[in-house]
Amino acid sequence: MQPKVSIIMGSTSDLPVATKSAQQLDSLQIPFEMVALSAHRTPQEVETFAQQAEARGVQAIIAIAGMAAALPGVIAAQTSVPVIGVPVKGMLDGLDALLSIVQMPPGIPVATVGVGAGQNAALLAAQIIATADKEVAARLRAFRAGLNQKIVEANETLRAEQYTYKTN
Amino acid sequence: MQPKVSIIMGSTSDLPVATKSAQQLDSLQIPFEMVALSAHRTPQEVETFAQQAEARGVQAIIAIAGMAAALPGVIAAQTSVPVIGVPVKGMLDGLDALLSIVQMPPGIPVATVGVGAGQNAALLAAQIIATADKEVAARLRAFRAGLNQKIVEANETLRAEQYTYKTN
Amino acid sequence: MQPKVSIIMGSTSDLPVATKSAQQLDSLQIPFEMVALSAHRTPQEVETFAQQAEARGVQAIIAIAGMAAALPGVIAAQTSVPVIGVPVKGMLDGLDALLSIVQMPPGIPVATVGVGAGQNAALLAAQIIATADKEVAARLRAFRAGLNQKIVEANETLRAEQYTYKTN
Amino acid sequence: MQPKVSIIMGSTSDLPVATKSAQQLDSLQIPFEMVALSAHRTPQEVETFAQQAEARGVQAIIAIAGMAAALPGVIAAQTSVPVIGVPVKGMLDGLDALLSIVQMPPGIPVATVGVGAGQNAALLAAQIIATADKEVAARLRAFRAGLNQKIVEANETLRAEQYTYKTN
Amino acid sequence: MQPKVSIIMGSTSDLPVATKSAQQLDSLQIPFEMVALSAHRTPQEVETFAQQAEARGVQAIIAIAGMAAALPGVIAAQTSVPVIGVPVKGMLDGLDALLSIVQMPPGIPVATVGVGAGQNAALLAAQIIATADKEVAARLRAFRAGLNQKIVEANETLRAEQYTYKTN
Amino acid sequence: MQPKVSIIMGSTSDLPVATKSAQQLDSLQIPFEMVALSAHRTPQEVETFAQQAEARGVQAIIAIAGMAAALPGVIAAQTSVPVIGVPVKGMLDGLDALLSIVQMPPGIPVATVGVGAGQNAALLAAQIIATADKEVAARLRAFRAGLNQKIVEANETLRAEQYTYKTN
Amino acid sequence: MQPKVSIIMGSTSDLPVATKSAQQLDSLQIPFEMVALSAHRTPQEVETFAQQAEARGVQAIIAIAGMAAALPGVIAAQTSVPVIGVPVKGMLDGLDALLSIVQMPPGIPVATVGVGAGQNAALLAAQIIATADKEVAARLRAFRAGLNQKIVEANETLRAEQYTYKTN
Amino acid sequence: MQPKVSIIMGSTSDLPVATKSAQQLDSLQIPFEMVALSAHRTPQEVETFAQQAEARGVQAIIAIAGMAAALPGVIAAQTSVPVIGVPVKGMLDGLDALLSIVQMPPGIPVATVGVGAGQNAALLAAQIIATADKEVAARLRAFRAGLNQKIVEANETLRAEQYTYKTN
Repeated sequence: MQPKVSIIMGSTSDLPVATKSAQQLDSLQIPFEMVALSAHRTPQEVETFAQQAEARGVQAIIAIAGMAAALPGVIAAQTSVPVIGVPVKGMLDGLDALLSIVQMPPGIPVATVGVGAGQNAALLAAQIIATADKEVAARLRAFRAGLNQKIVEANETLRAEQYTYKTN
Repeated sequence: MQPKVSIIMGSTSDLPVATKSAQQLDSLQIPFEMVALSAHRTPQEVETFAQQAEARGVQAIIAIAGMAAALPGVIAAQTSVPVIGVPVKGMLDGLDALLSIVQMPPGIPVATVGVGAGQNAALLAAQIIATADKEVAARLRAFRAGLNQKIVEANETLRAEQYTYKTN
Repeated sequence: MQPKVSIIMGSTSDLPVATKSAQQLDSLQIPFEMVALSAHRTPQEVETFAQQAEARGVQAIIAIAGMAAALPGVIAAQTSVPVIGVPVKGMLDGLDALLSIVQMPPGIPVATVGVGAGQNAALLAAQIIATADKEVAARLRAFRAGLNQKIVEANETLRAEQYTYKTN
Repeated sequence: MQPKVSIIMGSTSDLPVATKSAQQLDSLQIPFEMVALSAHRTPQEVETFAQQAEARGVQAIIAIAGMAAALPGVIAAQTSVPVIGVPVKGMLDGLDALLSIVQMPPGIPVATVGVGAGQNAALLAAQIIATADKEVAARLRAFRAGLNQKIVEANETLRAEQYTYKTN
Repeated sequence: MQPKVSIIMGSTSDLPVATKSAQQLDSLQIPFEMVALSAHRTPQEVETFAQQAEARGVQAIIAIAGMAAALPGVIAAQTSVPVIGVPVKGMLDGLDALLSIVQMPPGIPVATVGVGAGQNAALLAAQIIATADKEVAARLRAFRAGLNQKIVEANETLRAEQYTYKTN
Repeated sequence: MQPKVSIIMGSTSDLPVATKSAQQLDSLQIPFEMVALSAHRTPQEVETFAQQAEARGVQAIIAIAGMAAALPGVIAAQTSVPVIGVPVKGMLDGLDALLSIVQMPPGIPVATVGVGAGQNAALLAAQIIATADKEVAARLRAFRAGLNQKIVEANETLRAEQYTYKTN
Repeated sequence: MQPKVSIIMGSTSDLPVATKSAQQLDSLQIPFEMVALSAHRTPQEVETFAQQAEARGVQAIIAIAGMAAALPGVIAAQTSVPVIGVPVKGMLDGLDALLSIVQMPPGIPVATVGVGAGQNAALLAAQIIATADKEVAARLRAFRAGLNQKIVEANETLRAEQYTYKTN
Repeated sequence: MQPKVSIIMGSTSDLPVATKSAQQLDSLQIPFEMVALSAHRTPQEVETFAQQAEARGVQAIIAIAGMAAALPGVIAAQTSVPVIGVPVKGMLDGLDALLSIVQMPPGIPVATVGVGAGQNAALLAAQIIATADKEVAARLRAFRAGLNQKIVEANETLRAEQYTYKTN
């Protein structure tokens, strides 16, 4: 099936973050591809990828990068497909990558998510697709309905435990 | 005409940033609305707005906020419409707002752009809409084709000036 | 017994910090409750909780949160009960959560304590209650009288050890 | 009338922040006093003030300080009256003062508000007093009911202006 | 004359920094060119420039950029000519640009100088050229011999002034 | 008279900070000298100065520097006379200079004071001299006795003004 | 023997840093004492200590503290004996403590050394004592003469090892 | 063989970073030397080294240093040979060393690479040498041609793995 989301990483050391994106997309039944590309080590391949993405039917690009994280911005410079940037921890808990990704010049935005936030990148991609795809929208609604489940379970646990603390 | 993008700001002091979003959307002929809402001062109105946005046909929400910038995240918590967060300068050149917006918990992403980057927020909204709207996609392509124009002009200026520096 | 303090956490991963609050309140014989709530994943429950807190006799709310820590501010927005915010380590040793909690807009304060400072949050809650509760005030005085005990013991230890260093 | 809140500042250069506290307390009809004290230049006076505050009926102390802002913590060390710390801009937009105030050791909390947030410090003091004072509680409710008014007005302004941007 | 150094800037707003580079190169009689290029707005032109630089006889490239400053790294990715990166003030006094430029991945270095340090970038370019060009080396030695002149003059001024301070 | 304190600055742009040191030393009747020296531009002069300081009777050296502020450390490396480092604002409100001065390797300390704190540097020099000079000690005591005077005056001003705020 | 240096720590968790100070002082045969005192938990004892230090013959005070590190400043406020502040790692690798210690208000300096730099604090104390004590001055000179020994040994090691790398 | 690059480190604890430089130079067949020198502990040796470097045929100096990293700047102050500074992790993930190295005053540049980036320092040295040495230039081209190999291999791995994620 034609991928609707491309997950791009600058190095296989970013694979744990990319896997979080992949698993979330998979559970929402959104076809995707995973590709290793580097703004600094394979600039021509980045260019080719970015210029062909729209024609290939890609609707969102997740670009994962650390340190002087040029990858998301360089891809965004060569396509109108929304690019979601995921900073990876390098220096200062990822502040280097966060600033390198989010502080784009006027004209070329990158939709930046939190440091290491591969799952949120996938959800944002899904939300973008859902603006015109009712099936994905329905699956997203189901996913979000389950978000409070952890909180419900946490409260069940707490209800028992807190008696040991609570003054009677 | 039904707005496709909502520009939300927490205070009229954010109007200069919001105006950059508005002007860019206007030039791309994307209908939008501008609303003042505060996660802290009008929480019920935020809730009502967020819960009705999708049904009203809003395809992207631009949420502009400074300091403990909860607005984008709180909206994102109550809708599946993509939320684009724009940090505004407060402390440390806007680092307080940037971290408050971008570091969302798993499950609820906010697409964060640079500090004060109202124009880029609008372009990101347009890119999202363009994934399913060929007219907007065409207008975006035209906009992007013009991006290198400033560079072309800059080089014309430089060509003259640099002779004063360049050793012959 | 009716709880006088609510300890709210955004995730069970914050339980170690919450437990420090609970143990301190327990030792001061202040009845409390522990609840898991999330500004982003259970916004309606947060609203219901905040709006009913005062009527239920809650005199201080301890809200523990990390990253884009919106929870304390969102609760504070919907109640006049003092809200004590406890940042939890995320990025930059918790600077993201600290700034997200402390930098509230004019009108809605959050009483912020140090990163991970669950015990201090409980003591601040006790000090607030003690302004009108002489029994709690007396217990606080006793607690504080004991604070210098660790220093006394440390000096006893040092007195012995330092002879090995001190030049005779 | 006996003051219920003490506003303490380390230097008259902090007067603009203190005035914001004073005006807010005044509008809530809470009697207060303003005193200049310095942890570093008048340590004995700080000690005397802190030790007598509770007996004098002070229910909250607002301590305003910049740079190596020891004042709030040093006062908190010598009284059980809740101390609200207000960092003032020095280095790094007040990060030096913020960290100096908020990062207190276990046992002695300071309720820290945002950088320069004199008004929020006063509101927090009022919320503390309101836990046992129904009149102040009522005035606070009235104040908070008015908080959304600015947003209402902002939207009236926006409604007119946005027509110039909104595509028809 | 064939330029030996290329001064590249991402925007004419960087011209004041570029001018410092140009004036220093001019005074060392090193032929140079000034070009506006943007990693994000004119990626193809950047590629063409970088790939032809070596063949055109360019021995050092000064790349000036602010914010998510991808320009120096993207040029360095496509040429073996040494690239000198000059961060320009954006957020946090230029820390965003500094980290975006200096934190390059293994394999592709950028020789980074201080924020706004256009003159030092030119001197570094001159030092690189001087490793194989005795004339430039001689001019550099002359320039450096004059560096202490400002200190000499400062001391002359101080010698007079300090008498007003110095105790007799 | 033989100077007991040397005030060293890396550039005449540091003169305002140096003047604060000079005026404070002058008012304590401590003879001093002011010299411009640069770790980077006049390394030999720095070496000569540092190596002769002790023999010339200098008892404390105040070294003022900004940015990559090597001057205090380089002087400290070549003399046992205590070196007091004063960071000057460059990047991040002087954090660059502060870290460059204070983070010395084991074996070579620099006594660092606050950013721009020329007066405190002079007082620290005076305190060092006063450990063995009873006259300077007496003058320091007199100076410190006057420190609370500003606070006394501030309170006189506040006493009048606060009536306008204080609720009756 | 009468101690000439007091090593003060806010908590026994600071003992590893204090021990570095103690060992260095011991090796220079400077008599010292080690005392636990807390600006926040034992303010009266801090006051008593500081006010008696000079009369007891203490010539330098090393104050070690972390987080909202008020201890060095509070001691400095009550004595003219030079106070050397040693920040201990808390948040942001000790930046919280560093700023809390170094950014003192005009009139009350603290001689700040690097984060965790217990040895350098002792050396600075020794340098202060050495301004009037020829024996300590001689021992310091001997210590400093040995500082280059590690470098000499390092080079011996490198000389052997580098042959494995160096191209022949 | 005469070394063309000097790798200087301030302490043997920097040896892992220096080794990365050495291995890269070795693989490019560039003769080098490794020397331990300290700006603070062996200032005279630093001076001698720097002043003789050019005459000995050294074409680039790699200076590795942490904390108040004065070494690269102090060497640069005494030679026209290009100095490449490598910051080593100390405080704030090496931000202290990075700012100490990169923020040089006008007149004396240091070519700074990323924190711990020993390999990139060597590559930059090679690029400098390659401006006038065709053999080194050829070896560099070969090295860079291989840079995309890791990306190629990563994609081979991903191609297999992604099938487990990709929706069919």
